[in-house]
Amino acid sequence: MKPLARIPGMRLLHSPGPTRVPDEVVNAMARQPTDLADARLPLLISACESGMKALLQTERADVFFYAANGHGGWEAVIANLVAPGASVLVPGTGHFSDDWAEQVEAFGGRAVRTPYVEGRPIDPAAVEAVLRDDTGHRIGAVFVVHTDTASGTTCDLAALRGAIDAAAHPALFVVDVVASLAAAPFAMDALGVNVAIGASQKGLMVHPGLAFVAADARAMEVARGNPTPRFYWDWLRRQSDLSYRKFCGTPPLAHMAGLEAALGLIAAEGIANVHARHARLARAVHAAVNAWSESGTLRLFTTVASARSVSVTAIEVSPGIDAEALRTVARERFQVAVAGGLGPLHGRVFRIGHLGDMNEAMILGCLAGVEAALRAQGIAVGKQGVEAAIAALVDATA
Amino acid sequence: MKPLARIPGMRLLHSPGPTRVPDEVVNAMARQPTDLADARLPLLISACESGMKALLQTERADVFFYAANGHGGWEAVIANLVAPGASVLVPGTGHFSDDWAEQVEAFGGRAVRTPYVEGRPIDPAAVEAVLRDDTGHRIGAVFVVHTDTASGTTCDLAALRGAIDAAAHPALFVVDVVASLAAAPFAMDALGVNVAIGASQKGLMVHPGLAFVAADARAMEVARGNPTPRFYWDWLRRQSDLSYRKFCGTPPLAHMAGLEAALGLIAAEGIANVHARHARLARAVHAAVNAWSESGTLRLFTTVASARSVSVTAIEVSPGIDAEALRTVARERFQVAVAGGLGPLHGRVFRIGHLGDMNEAMILGCLAGVEAALRAQGIAVGKQGVEAAIAALVDATA
Amino acid sequence: MKPLARIPGMRLLHSPGPTRVPDEVVNAMARQPTDLADARLPLLISACESGMKALLQTERADVFFYAANGHGGWEAVIANLVAPGASVLVPGTGHFSDDWAEQVEAFGGRAVRTPYVEGRPIDPAAVEAVLRDDTGHRIGAVFVVHTDTASGTTCDLAALRGAIDAAAHPALFVVDVVASLAAAPFAMDALGVNVAIGASQKGLMVHPGLAFVAADARAMEVARGNPTPRFYWDWLRRQSDLSYRKFCGTPPLAHMAGLEAALGLIAAEGIANVHARHARLARAVHAAVNAWSESGTLRLFTTVASARSVSVTAIEVSPGIDAEALRTVARERFQVAVAGGLGPLHGRVFRIGHLGDMNEAMILGCLAGVEAALRAQGIAVGKQGVEAAIAALVDATA
Amino acid sequence: MKPLARIPGMRLLHSPGPTRVPDEVVNAMARQPTDLADARLPLLISACESGMKALLQTERADVFFYAANGHGGWEAVIANLVAPGASVLVPGTGHFSDDWAEQVEAFGGRAVRTPYVEGRPIDPAAVEAVLRDDTGHRIGAVFVVHTDTASGTTCDLAALRGAIDAAAHPALFVVDVVASLAAAPFAMDALGVNVAIGASQKGLMVHPGLAFVAADARAMEVARGNPTPRFYWDWLRRQSDLSYRKFCGTPPLAHMAGLEAALGLIAAEGIANVHARHARLARAVHAAVNAWSESGTLRLFTTVASARSVSVTAIEVSPGIDAEALRTVARERFQVAVAGGLGPLHGRVFRIGHLGDMNEAMILGCLAGVEAALRAQGIAVGKQGVEAAIAALVDATA
Repeated sequence: MKPLARIPGMRLLHSPGPTRVPDEVVNAMARQPTDLADARLPLLISACESGMKALLQTERADVFFYAANGHGGWEAVIANLVAPGASVLVPGTGHFSDDWAEQVEAFGGRAVRTPYVEGRPIDPAAVEAVLRDDTGHRIGAVFVVHTDTASGTTCDLAALRGAIDAAAHPALFVVDVVASLAAAPFAMDALGVNVAIGASQKGLMVHPGLAFVAADARAMEVARGNPTPRFYWDWLRRQSDLSYRKFCGTPPLAHMAGLEAALGLIAAEGIANVHARHARLARAVHAAVNAWSESGTLRLFTTVASARSVSVTAIEVSPGIDAEALRTVARERFQVAVAGGLGPLHGRVFRIGHLGDMNEAMILGCLAGVEAALRAQGIAVGKQGVEAAIAALVDATA
Repeated sequence: MKPLARIPGMRLLHSPGPTRVPDEVVNAMARQPTDLADARLPLLISACESGMKALLQTERADVFFYAANGHGGWEAVIANLVAPGASVLVPGTGHFSDDWAEQVEAFGGRAVRTPYVEGRPIDPAAVEAVLRDDTGHRIGAVFVVHTDTASGTTCDLAALRGAIDAAAHPALFVVDVVASLAAAPFAMDALGVNVAIGASQKGLMVHPGLAFVAADARAMEVARGNPTPRFYWDWLRRQSDLSYRKFCGTPPLAHMAGLEAALGLIAAEGIANVHARHARLARAVHAAVNAWSESGTLRLFTTVASARSVSVTAIEVSPGIDAEALRTVARERFQVAVAGGLGPLHGRVFRIGHLGDMNEAMILGCLAGVEAALRAQGIAVGKQGVEAAIAALVDATA
Repeated sequence: MKPLARIPGMRLLHSPGPTRVPDEVVNAMARQPTDLADARLPLLISACESGMKALLQTERADVFFYAANGHGGWEAVIANLVAPGASVLVPGTGHFSDDWAEQVEAFGGRAVRTPYVEGRPIDPAAVEAVLRDDTGHRIGAVFVVHTDTASGTTCDLAALRGAIDAAAHPALFVVDVVASLAAAPFAMDALGVNVAIGASQKGLMVHPGLAFVAADARAMEVARGNPTPRFYWDWLRRQSDLSYRKFCGTPPLAHMAGLEAALGLIAAEGIANVHARHARLARAVHAAVNAWSESGTLRLFTTVASARSVSVTAIEVSPGIDAEALRTVARERFQVAVAGGLGPLHGRVFRIGHLGDMNEAMILGCLAGVEAALRAQGIAVGKQGVEAAIAALVDATA
Repeated sequence: MKPLARIPGMRLLHSPGPTRVPDEVVNAMARQPTDLADARLPLLISACESGMKALLQTERADVFFYAANGHGGWEAVIANLVAPGASVLVPGTGHFSDDWAEQVEAFGGRAVRTPYVEGRPIDPAAVEAVLRDDTGHRIGAVFVVHTDTASGTTCDLAALRGAIDAAAHPALFVVDVVASLAAAPFAMDALGVNVAIGASQKGLMVHPGLAFVAADARAMEVARGNPTPRFYWDWLRRQSDLSYRKFCGTPPLAHMAGLEAALGLIAAEGIANVHARHARLARAVHAAVNAWSESGTLRLFTTVASARSVSVTAIEVSPGIDAEALRTVARERFQVAVAGGLGPLHGRVFRIGHLGDMNEAMILGCLAGVEAALRAQGIAVGKQGVEAAIAALVDATA
C-alpha cells in the first residue's frame, strides 16, 4: 500500500467536511485577487451577504464573515456574547457540544450541560427543565449544535424553540448549523434563532477557511454590553460599510469568491431541491446500513430514525471490529474516504459523509466501496446493502 | 428531466472515450502558451516523443503528432501509405474496420475485408488465407483495429503477426491502438508492427484533439514512394527538427502539454500497474454483467472471453428493450454516462467504458448506477450484479 | 541565463499567435468531457456555429470546425476546392502566400502568383490584371491572406473584391482571416467572400489546435464537383446534424468549449469595441517604433501606413543588428516574448504581437521591455519610444 | 467607464497585497480536499512548517498557522503574550503601528509608543531610550512592524536588536514581517527575534486568508504564564502532532496547499535571488518616481533612501492633486491597479506594490500605465520616468 503515490481517478470523498468543491467554486477561487479598491469587491461582499441571508432565511440578522474555521466561528460567538462568569446552556449532543462547552469555559464562562444519550437527539424537555430552574435568568444563551457531525444526529430546532418559549426564558437561541446548512431545512427568523454559526467546508462546498456568524439585534445588544476583550472577532467593529472593517483587515477574497459561486449553485438548483437531494441520498445510505446490519456486526449509530442527519451517517461496529483498519482499506484499496469516530467514539464508529456536491452515482460508489472494504476485512454483513440503496434511489426518484 | 441544469456532484463518465481528464493534465493544458521560440517548446515536444516511444515500446519508429482526432490519424496513414489503386487488407472487427475501409476507398484504395463475426475477434487464419492467396503481393498493408470500441472486442496481435509471417507476406502491419493503448499491453517493435495510430482521448487521458502515428523505416519508405497528394499529413515534410515543420504549422501546445503530463502519470504509476488496473476493473464489469445476465435480458456482447477488452464492455440487450432509453435514465437520473451502440448495434447494445483515469470506487459507482437504471426501467436482471463486481475486486486485490 | 527555470510573474506574450488565453477560456477548456450523447454537446456546437457566423458576419455560409491548425484549414480549402490541375490565384503577401501556394501545388494545383513588394499590401490592380487576362476563366479561386503574420501587412479586401468584380471574373473569393479575425473588421457576406479560413490561437484567444472554414453555397458547389480524394477535410461529409459527422469522428470538446467562451467574451465586449481596442493598441506600438526609428537603427516594416496590421507589427532592424539576439534578451532578461522574422525575413525583422486578450498596461509593459532589450544590446534608439506610446494611448482614450 | 465589464487582458495588480497568485499556487489551491485522515495531510503540514522555518531562518521557533488574516496574526500574538494591564512598546511606523497598538489596548494592554516621523524609519535610539527608562522591566515586548505597508518604509531590525541589547532589556522582540517576508532579507534566529508574524497574501503569493506566527521558547514561556482567555489563538493548545489540534479544528487545506507550492517556488528560485529581484524592481520604481518628481508635483514618501521598502513604494502628491482620481484612471483606463493612502495619508499618497510574483515586464507596464494616468489627469511630471526605470533595470541586470 503506497498512500502517497498518485491515485488513479478521483478518490470519492465522503468525509462530512471538507466536502467536494464544485468546478464553479474552484474556478471562482482561482481568480486573481483584485486590489481592495476595485469596484468588484463590494459587489462580491454584498452578494455573499445577501445570498447567505437568503440561505439562512433571515431578514433581520447581520452576517459577519471570518477568515477562520468553525471553531473560529464559535470563538466569535463566545467572545461577543459570553462575559466573564456568564452562564450558557449547552445541551449535550456528544463531541461537538463538549468541545463548544470547553471553549466557553476557556473564556471564563460557565457551561451548563444537559446529559447526552448516545443515539438520541437533544431532549427538549431537559432544556426546558434547566431553563425553568434558572429563575434568575443567569443563563444568557442556549448554544445548540443542530447536527453533531460526530454522531450524525440532528436535533429538532422547532421543539427546542418551543422549550425555551415554554420556559418563558429570555436566553438567546444560538445555533451551530455548520454541518446542516444547505443540507437540512433551516429558517433563522421563523425559528426565532438569534445567532447562527456556519463554516464553508460542508454543505457550502467551499474549501475550509471561512466561517460566518449571523446575529440579530438582540444578540448585538448583548455584544454591546459585553466587556470581554476582543478585536478580530468583534461584531461591533465589523459593522461597517468598509470592506477593511468588515473583515478586520484584508478580506479572504478567494473564499468569498468561492462562496458567491456556491451560493449561486444552491440558488440555481433551488434550496428545496437541495434539501430533497440530501434527504434522498441519506435514505439510500440508511437503507444500505440497515441491510448490512442484518448480520449484527454493525448498525446505525443514531437510533431515533427521525434524528438521522441528512449530512452524515455514523455507523457503529461491534467490539472486536477495527473501524480504523476498515477505513484504511476503504481509502487505500477501494478509493473511498470515509471518516472515523471522534473522541470516545474513536474506533467504535465510522462515518459516511453525504452532503454537499453529491449525487446518486457518487453515493452508490461510496457504499459499494465500503461494502468491498467490509468484505476485504472479513466482516460479515448482510449481502444486500448496495442493492437496498439502489432500491431506495429507484423508489425515491420514481 | 432537465438535462441542461447544473448536475450536482460529478457525473461519472463511462464513455469509452473521451475519458476523464486528470487534474495534472487539466493543469498542464491550462498553462498559458509560450511563444514558439521559447526553449520550453522543444523540451515539451521531445518529452512527448520519447514518452510516446516508451509507451509504444518502440525504438525504431518516428512519432508524428497531429492536431486531429483518430480519424485524422487514419487519414495520415492512408494518405502516406495508400497510393491510388493500391490494396489494403482490413480484417473485419465491426464498426471501426468498416469505417477505416470506407476511408481507404475514399482515397482511391482498394480495401480487402475478412468477414466479421459478432462477438468474436479477428480470425488470424482468415488473414493468413487472404495473404497466401495474394501471391502477387498487391496488398501493401494490413490495417488492424486492435480494440474495436463499438464491440469491446480485442484481437490477438501476436497471432496476427504470426499469420502474416506464416503467409510470408511483405505487407506492412498497421495497428490502430486508439482504444487499447495505455490500457492493454502493446509492444510495437516486439510485435513487428510497422505503424501504430492512436489518439489522446482514451487511455491517454487527454481531451480529444490530438492524434499520433508512429511509423518505422519500412513504412517511411512506402510513404516516400507514394504519389498521393498531401501536405498536412505528410510524414516526410514533418521529419524535421523544427517544431513548425513537425506540426505543419503551429503546434497544439495545450494538448502536447497535457500529453506530457499524462505520459508522466502513466510512467509514475508504472505501465504494468496501469495494465493490471485496467484488467482488474474490466473483470469487475464482466462479473456484474454476467450476474445480471442470469435473467436473460442482457449479456456480454463479446462471447470469446479472452477477447473481451479491458477498455470497454459492450452489453447486448434482448429485443424489446430500449437501450437508448436506459442510457438516458442512467445519465439523467443516476448520473452515470455510458455509451450507446454504433451503426448496426444502435439500440442493441450499450457500452461501459472503463479505461483511462479510473479506479475501483468509480467503476462500482458506475455499475450500481447502471443497475439502478435497469431497475427503474423495469428490466429484470439478476440481483447480484454489483455484489459480483465487489467480489471480483476484493479477490483481485487480495 | 537559465531559460528553463520558473519565471517569476507572468512573461508577457507578444507573439502574433498563439496569444494569451483568458481565464474564462481556460476554465471552459478545463471542464471534464461529456459523453457524446450528452445534450450539452449539440448546444455547445450550435453556440460555436452561430457565434462564429455572427463574428464573420455571414448568414449564408456553413461553418466547419476542424481539430487542426491553420495549415489544416488551408488543406481543407485546397482539398475541397482545388481539383488536380486546377488554377488558383494567390496574390503575393510574402511568407504566408508563398506557403499557401506551395501547399496548393503539393495537391497538384497550379498557383498563379502576383508579385510581392516588401512593405506593401496586395495590389488590387495586379489582381485585376491577372483575372482579366484569364479570359478562359481557368482560375477557380483567388486565395487571399488578409493579414500576413510575417510582415504585419493587411490588404484591402473591399478593393480586392472590387478588382474581381471589375474583371467580371467568376473566381471564388477565398480569404484567410487567421491573423485578422476579431482584431480587424471583416464582413464575409458584405465583401462577397465565398470562403473564410481561421484558427483558434490568435484573435480568438483559444489554445492552438482548432481551425474553421466557412463556405457559402457557391463554394460547396465547387466542392461537390471536385474529385480530389479526401475524407477528414471533406465538407460534404461534414454537412450533417450529427456531431460525429460534423467533426469526422470525436469533436475536440475542450477547444469547442474554449471557443464558445471566447466568442462570448467578444460579444460581451462588443465587436466594434474589440476592433477599436486593437486599433488603439496598434497605434501605440507604431508610435513607439516611429520614435525609436529616429536613430535609424530600426523601422516599421510595413511602409504603407494604412496597411499596418492591428494584430502584429514587424520591425526591421538595420544590417549588423542581430534581431534574434535582441529577442532572446527581451525574453530572458525582461520577460517579454516577441516573435522573429520568418523565412527570408529571419534576422531582418522582429515582430510584436498585439492581438487578442490584450490591454493598455500589457502593451506598455511589452514596449518598455523591448526598449530595455534594445538598450541592453547597445542598439541606439530614439529615446521617447515608450513616451510616444503613452501619449498615443492618452490621446486615444481622452 | 464601466468598471464591472470584463477587462480585456490581465489587469496589472500593484497592490502591496494581495498580490498576484502564481499558476502553481492556483493549481495547488484547486486540488480537491482530502479527508482529514489522509496520509497526505500531515505531509502537507510538515512541508509548510519546515519550509516556513527555512524561510524565516529559524531552527528554534515553532510555527503556528491560522485561518485568519494579518490582523488575526496580531491577535494571536496579543492574546498569547499580553496579559491584562501588561505593557508593550510599539515603535511608531505610522498606520500599522497605530493599528497594532490600538489592538493591544482593546485587549487591556498598555501600548507605549515612540514618535513616528513621516518618511523616516523607526529610530533605534528612541527605542533604546524607552527601554532604558523602563528600569522595572514592565515592558514585556517590543512590537515592531518591519515594513509599514502604508508608508513603504522599512526599519533596521539589526539596529533595533542592538537597541534592546544596549538597554539590556529582557523584552521579547516581536516582528511583523507581513509586508517584508520573501521580499527583504530576514533571519529570525540571527536577529534574536522571539516572535515573527506574517500573512499569505504578500511576498508569499497566496490568496489572503492564512496567517502564521513563529514563536520561540521564551515567547512560549510568556504565553504559558498569561491568563488572557483564548482558545482559537492559543499556542499551547496548538502545540500538538494532531492536525486537528494544530489548527484548532479543520485546517485551511487549500491555503496550506497553496503555501506549500509557494514555498517551493521561492526555494527553487533561491531566496537570495528572490531578494535580489525585489531590490532590482524596487530600484526601477524609485528611479521612475525620482524622474517624475523633477516637476515638483510628486515625490517618494520615504525620504531616507536606505529605508525605502523593496515591497511597496508610497508616492506623495502635492496639495491640489487628487490621488484617488489618479488611481481610478490608472485602473479603469490603463489597467494598472495601485493602492491608495491609508488613514491620514488618504488622498496624500498613492502606493505601488512591487512584491511577490513580479518581474521586469510587469513593473515596467505598471510604471508606464501610471505615467499614462498622470498625463491623462494633466499632472505635470518629469518626462523620463519609464526611461529611468528601464535604465535602472538595464544596469541592474548587466
